[in-house]
Amino acid sequence: MTDQVTALDLPMQEPLPDRTQKYFDICQEKLGMVPNVLKAHAFDIPKLEAFTALYNDLMLGESGLSKLEREMIAVTVSAINHCFYCLTAHGAAVREMGDPELGEMIVMNWRVADLPARQRAMLAFTVQVTEASSTIEEADRQVLRDHGFSDRDIWDIANVAGFFNMTNRIASAVDMRPNPEYHGMAR
Amino acid sequence: MTDQVTALDLPMQEPLPDRTQKYFDICQEKLGMVPNVLKAHAFDIPKLEAFTALYNDLMLGESGLSKLEREMIAVTVSAINHCFYCLTAHGAAVREMGDPELGEMIVMNWRVADLPARQRAMLAFTVQVTEASSTIEEADRQVLRDHGFSDRDIWDIANVAGFFNMTNRIASAVDMRPNPEYHGMAR
Amino acid sequence: MTDQVTALDLPMQEPLPDRTQKYFDICQEKLGMVPNVLKAHAFDIPKLEAFTALYNDLMLGESGLSKLEREMIAVTVSAINHCFYCLTAHGAAVREMGDPELGEMIVMNWRVADLPARQRAMLAFTVQVTEASSTIEEADRQVLRDHGFSDRDIWDIANVAGFFNMTNRIASAVDMRPNPEYHGMAR
Amino acid sequence: MTDQVTALDLPMQEPLPDRTQKYFDICQEKLGMVPNVLKAHAFDIPKLEAFTALYNDLMLGESGLSKLEREMIAVTVSAINHCFYCLTAHGAAVREMGDPELGEMIVMNWRVADLPARQRAMLAFTVQVTEASSTIEEADRQVLRDHGFSDRDIWDIANVAGFFNMTNRIASAVDMRPNPEYHGMAR
Amino acid sequence: MTDQVTALDLPMQEPLPDRTQKYFDICQEKLGMVPNVLKAHAFDIPKLEAFTALYNDLMLGESGLSKLEREMIAVTVSAINHCFYCLTAHGAAVREMGDPELGEMIVMNWRVADLPARQRAMLAFTVQVTEASSTIEEADRQVLRDHGFSDRDIWDIANVAGFFNMTNRIASAVDMRPNPEYHGMAR
Amino acid sequence: MTDQVTALDLPMQEPLPDRTQKYFDICQEKLGMVPNVLKAHAFDIPKLEAFTALYNDLMLGESGLSKLEREMIAVTVSAINHCFYCLTAHGAAVREMGDPELGEMIVMNWRVADLPARQRAMLAFTVQVTEASSTIEEADRQVLRDHGFSDRDIWDIANVAGFFNMTNRIASAVDMRPNPEYHGMAR
Repeated sequence: MTDQVTALDLPMQEPLPDRTQKYFDICQEKLGMVPNVLKAHAFDIPKLEAFTALYNDLMLGESGLSKLEREMIAVTVSAINHCFYCLTAHGAAVREMGDPELGEMIVMNWRVADLPARQRAMLAFTVQVTEASSTIEEADRQVLRDHGFSDRDIWDIANVAGFFNMTNRIASAVDMRPNPEYHGMAR
Repeated sequence: MTDQVTALDLPMQEPLPDRTQKYFDICQEKLGMVPNVLKAHAFDIPKLEAFTALYNDLMLGESGLSKLEREMIAVTVSAINHCFYCLTAHGAAVREMGDPELGEMIVMNWRVADLPARQRAMLAFTVQVTEASSTIEEADRQVLRDHGFSDRDIWDIANVAGFFNMTNRIASAVDMRPNPEYHGMAR
Repeated sequence: MTDQVTALDLPMQEPLPDRTQKYFDICQEKLGMVPNVLKAHAFDIPKLEAFTALYNDLMLGESGLSKLEREMIAVTVSAINHCFYCLTAHGAAVREMGDPELGEMIVMNWRVADLPARQRAMLAFTVQVTEASSTIEEADRQVLRDHGFSDRDIWDIANVAGFFNMTNRIASAVDMRPNPEYHGMAR
Repeated sequence: MTDQVTALDLPMQEPLPDRTQKYFDICQEKLGMVPNVLKAHAFDIPKLEAFTALYNDLMLGESGLSKLEREMIAVTVSAINHCFYCLTAHGAAVREMGDPELGEMIVMNWRVADLPARQRAMLAFTVQVTEASSTIEEADRQVLRDHGFSDRDIWDIANVAGFFNMTNRIASAVDMRPNPEYHGMAR
Repeated sequence: MTDQVTALDLPMQEPLPDRTQKYFDICQEKLGMVPNVLKAHAFDIPKLEAFTALYNDLMLGESGLSKLEREMIAVTVSAINHCFYCLTAHGAAVREMGDPELGEMIVMNWRVADLPARQRAMLAFTVQVTEASSTIEEADRQVLRDHGFSDRDIWDIANVAGFFNMTNRIASAVDMRPNPEYHGMAR
Repeated sequence: MTDQVTALDLPMQEPLPDRTQKYFDICQEKLGMVPNVLKAHAFDIPKLEAFTALYNDLMLGESGLSKLEREMIAVTVSAINHCFYCLTAHGAAVREMGDPELGEMIVMNWRVADLPARQRAMLAFTVQVTEASSTIEEADRQVLRDHGFSDRDIWDIANVAGFFNMTNRIASAVDMRPNPEYHGMAR
């Protein structure tokens, strides 16, 4: 298993600690691969664990947003930032959880997707968070509340959108490469 | 202690779990306050812990970048994103670790600061990560190496810059308010 | 065969003139579909013919640029303009003529593709044509010549890039929908 | 007649085919010149004919938009793109078909022109097509319908605006020079 | 008194004419310093006097806008333009005339300040004047009138905003340095 | 003489003070008109005098830049800001002092003008002052020195560019209308 998945020469710790190896084995079994973003962090186990803890909380934890909605936010952000890694990995997730055409639409231009008003408001806020966060005012949050989002949901939208504004930049800055398996998934 | 530090109605868990209360007590003792970003997350302890683990690793952990350099990156990003919370809290940090005028310069326009070429390269890369991450190519990373940064340092620059591109957006999206104590620090 | 492929109520002429019907039959036979952009124009046959004449000349005619290179230009432009129709149709073409991963890369961020310097120069010029055409100076054309492009090649790059800056805008303005067949092609 | 009207060394075919020569003679007679955009294409007659067919259909064919309105769209687009060729040639057309001051206004800032609401809506849509086509939604088209534009008119606005987003980029990319006669026309 | 306060080698006239020296003495007495922008102009007394005449008229003369409001406009413009000199000098003025936190807020992101609707409208117009003046239409002026601003007030907002769009650019272009005294004022 | 030349109801003082009337009479005699920018300020004579003093110093005073060069800077700035008033008035000045085609070129896209390297450097710096002043560094000033500009010349370029960034914004904000005489001058 070659582990250089970025432009940086930061090899995975070897051998991996037991619990990391176990985590990677579970990924391999469940997903058919160890996502490269995990390998990229594995030169430093505390960094890997801090990253996965935040990721898992935001994307897999309890939330008023469905997992598909969180993936839609991820891809909408990544399309603005033109992040190859995140569009590939999370585009595949939207194709799987939603449907193939939806995945393609969000990668290319979310506005063409025939979404309910609630989700359009969610993605419009995501765009504002990504492109012009300093202009957000109470009225913008109120639009979300008027579409039925709770304050906790608003927290989650902001945090998922914020998270991918982080990972997009990191992935592009270090030229992180997505696992090739993603390209063919759920077509 | 009033705990609503954002525009969202997400009160701190009450009472706080012992280890969280202890962490907050240490903050109070060492910093003279509990930073509002911690209170903002304290409606959900796993979120608070995931956030602080990542923050502490990036900003306080081992790195080829000094703590001041990491704060300079934080403020450079936050100036582009016009984030009131992060400029206030991390501007204070640069004033303290560096000097008051440096803190003001990075808040206002980092290019006016009389910095060594190495740090100018670091902040120029930070700007590119923030404004145009999809345009980053090997040549951009090579500029950093030519200024003496290791691949691990590049990882750290990218991750600190990425992190504040996340927190800036979250803070603005939920109207997070900095503790008033920051304003007068290290003037 | 339903023919409304845009948000505008402009039904195809009925019946189609013989030569148009023949042209559509050939498309159906060769491509397995009549591309929706043709149906969209078929409310007015002279418009359809003017469009296809220009398209066929630019994309299929003699040129120092390979057909794949022209498709790469098309997709690079369409990614900047976030055009769902053109990314779908021409992304499929790059997947087919090049390879599936190349198609995805150009849709998402062409800079991550491992291309020869000549093609990188071609796409960098394409970006400038798309984003800042008024800043183009002789030095920019000279870069292309230095990579071995002839003046005729420069004309072709400019014209293909220009053409998709037209079609992207038209497609988005009228909400043109790509044929669903494209999504699964050459994955 | 010197024929190099761009920065590219692509001389006109010599002699011109009869029907091209005849077309140029008509231009000379009617307009007092052969527009340089035609000479620029005349190194390849099929390209010239494909270009003129599309141009003539869009700008001179049947439409719910007056010829002046189509020229106003052309100049509004060209002002955003700072295209010297198109501003010169089509600015002259607006001066002639409209009046001299209107031509200057659209070149400089269309918003200062005292236009009926219908035309302001048309030009506002033109700006959106030019600057942010991926953000166009049904509501934007509906604004045009509410001002009395038919779906066919919307097609025409989108296509004329799209066309000049093509030609602006080509003209700037090859440094196309307008005929000097335009400068003094209709002042 | 060293007088090079910019990157340009343009020493103050020596000795200063009597009335200039008197003016500088008054500054020293009243403000505790001669603002560097005055020293920067003092290589040419007519330029100094033209600048101060306009400045004093706009910022200190009669107006429906309070002096604090004019300083708020100054800082809002300077934050957009990231002007170190003007943010430092006029940020201090807002801290003094308003309060310290207000000064920081306007430097960092005026939208977070809890301002009356009238002042928010004033600053929103200031942003439009700064970022997109060519898009201003009668409706934008009417918003100001609806908030109680007179036509003379609108003139003043436009002129103060315009003035700092001038001085920001000059100060950055010549690397003008603010007096160090500003940093500690009114904290 | 109707005096409302902006969208604001700010009539000229009546009667004008003697010296103002004399100044206007001289304008009328020498230029064939009283420029509307002067009438627009004449509701308040000190404002008028402060504005004209600065204008006359910058545009008509001693400088290493020729008057034509200063007008070229004025128009380059105004083209970026799409200011109808300034493009009309100062475009006419470039046509007169330079030649008609040069005036048109600078209004439309200064890069197409065949200018000596010194003037191209001057206008490139003007663009940076206008669009991104906070990015100016010593290296940018050095480019000007390398083209033979003195530090005083750099001051003048920065100040003329700054001045029109002010007047463009004021003119657009109040909808200032140029005298109709400009349109036909020097064609």
